[in-house]
Amino acid sequence: MKKNNSYTELSNIIKNSKKILLFPHINIDGDAMGSSVALCRVLRNMGKEAYILVEDEISDNLTFLNDDKYITENQDIISNPDLTICVDCGEISRFPKRTEKFFSGKVTMCVDHHGTSDGTADYNIVEPEAAATGEILYRLFKEMDVDFDKEISNCLFTAITMDTGNFQYSNTTFISHQIVADLYKYGLDSNVVSINIYENNSWEKIQTEALVLAGTEFVLDGKIAIAKVTAKILKKTGCKMNETESIVSTLRSIGGVEIAALVKEDSKNNTRVSLRGKNYADVSIAAVALGGGGHVKAAGCTIEKNIDEATEIIKNELIKEIVRYNEN
Amino acid sequence: MKKNNSYTELSNIIKNSKKILLFPHINIDGDAMGSSVALCRVLRNMGKEAYILVEDEISDNLTFLNDDKYITENQDIISNPDLTICVDCGEISRFPKRTEKFFSGKVTMCVDHHGTSDGTADYNIVEPEAAATGEILYRLFKEMDVDFDKEISNCLFTAITMDTGNFQYSNTTFISHQIVADLYKYGLDSNVVSINIYENNSWEKIQTEALVLAGTEFVLDGKIAIAKVTAKILKKTGCKMNETESIVSTLRSIGGVEIAALVKEDSKNNTRVSLRGKNYADVSIAAVALGGGGHVKAAGCTIEKNIDEATEIIKNELIKEIVRYNEN
Repeated sequence: MKKNNSYTELSNIIKNSKKILLFPHINIDGDAMGSSVALCRVLRNMGKEAYILVEDEISDNLTFLNDDKYITENQDIISNPDLTICVDCGEISRFPKRTEKFFSGKVTMCVDHHGTSDGTADYNIVEPEAAATGEILYRLFKEMDVDFDKEISNCLFTAITMDTGNFQYSNTTFISHQIVADLYKYGLDSNVVSINIYENNSWEKIQTEALVLAGTEFVLDGKIAIAKVTAKILKKTGCKMNETESIVSTLRSIGGVEIAALVKEDSKNNTRVSLRGKNYADVSIAAVALGGGGHVKAAGCTIEKNIDEATEIIKNELIKEIVRYNEN
Repeated sequence: MKKNNSYTELSNIIKNSKKILLFPHINIDGDAMGSSVALCRVLRNMGKEAYILVEDEISDNLTFLNDDKYITENQDIISNPDLTICVDCGEISRFPKRTEKFFSGKVTMCVDHHGTSDGTADYNIVEPEAAATGEILYRLFKEMDVDFDKEISNCLFTAITMDTGNFQYSNTTFISHQIVADLYKYGLDSNVVSINIYENNSWEKIQTEALVLAGTEFVLDGKIAIAKVTAKILKKTGCKMNETESIVSTLRSIGGVEIAALVKEDSKNNTRVSLRGKNYADVSIAAVALGGGGHVKAAGCTIEKNIDEATEIIKNELIKEIVRYNEN
């Protein structure tokens, strides 16, 4: 990983740029979304021309932050950006169809908290100890003397609450709570945000979760729990794949489970895998071994195999991780 | 409600008492449990003889706080208490089998945040604006100049995180976050607490949730969702009734649902009801009308009818609440 630049350096680069494009990672989550929208809003408030460029669909529970204003799939929206910033990611595999556009920036920048981030940009702040990229942006905004408002606060809260699992994961620190306490000053409405992100589940999703969990396979005396979201189940319930992400948390919540794996049938020969660890397992090892990435307790990968073959492959990697721990 | 006493008054009474009994409410939840254990530990650290007196079973996910030390069902453990304190409750209906023992205290005290608390004790601090009784105790401990430690911090975090729905409910304030940020100083391990309280679900519970949700009844275009935990389902899965409480949150998380009701078959002619509101409904009105109590967005009651009759009764009360709102 490259040495980080200072907050002042990033602040100065941003101040001197006019046309700015933001690049959150694919399969955009609460941190990538909340951080990108907060930053885009701050940039526009500064008079910049700024957009968030994406390449895949935004899940329904996050669209309330966009307000139809910031996000676009149109790569030509800004032709020669002064500055491109990858947000909550730092590897080109996390924005594969936008790589060329990212490097078309006169200056490139990366703001991220993933340990797997490779510091590929001209200017980088990568802080793996931050619970969320939203925390890094909070500090950057303070350095930039930004006028915080309700929308920016709601976005940063979304980023922090979702990436800390509502202040439960081990990445949560006193800083996460101090930042959120401060955001209330600017009008944060944590209840409205929470209802939007967590209490808009479709009945289809609830039924899908029940069917997926019913087929859970327990491995190594229940230390590993693996469940499959098949195309067949989605067809039966009418649920969209991007609504199924939270099932992996339910899987992990089962007593005795150390690693939870949710295996998702993307297409006939493409399977996506979400991994979660509980106490000691480092699930990023299995994810990286299969070409993916992530954190110690939350990682993922894509396997170009059918769902049954992919399940066997990931199962073997996870068994290795449990065995590795028990040998050490 | 009686006028509150000051924190200094409560602190002085406690300092001058030697034998102290604590009374958390029945169906003990994270706030009642975390608050009682924190207070009991503080009292013992001060050299007091102190116990927590209960009258029903503690759910498995909370027993880790007790450490086999503080809780007893033996009403004779202290014969003539100098001080009795009801914690996280202020109505005798919330400790029905312990009422006489409570009033046997030479001095009685109440520390609570329920608006329905009736200030029946000699000394009262009832703060409905506090998100959890744990927040009130935090302030009391600061007033008493208590030496906080990891255990006390973990207890108060349990109280706050569970009563705020992990900082999502509208009762959450910047104070909740400031307190938690401070608790990290004393060794709070929020991840260990969270794994204990949320990630020890039995497979029986997961299966029960699926079966209970499958039978959900939607009323008034899905504004009300009612699901039943029947004795039959519990027999089939082997799950205990006190493990089913969280299902009501899943019910409320369905998009469009304004009120969620979980109806639990306690015995042939006794049904317990848990209610949750989302945006505008005040579920405490229906709960109070049926002899129960609670908060605007989380309340409950017991109906001495079989589960089907009780379901019709609560359904009618909830319809009234939705209609009442739409008429105003």
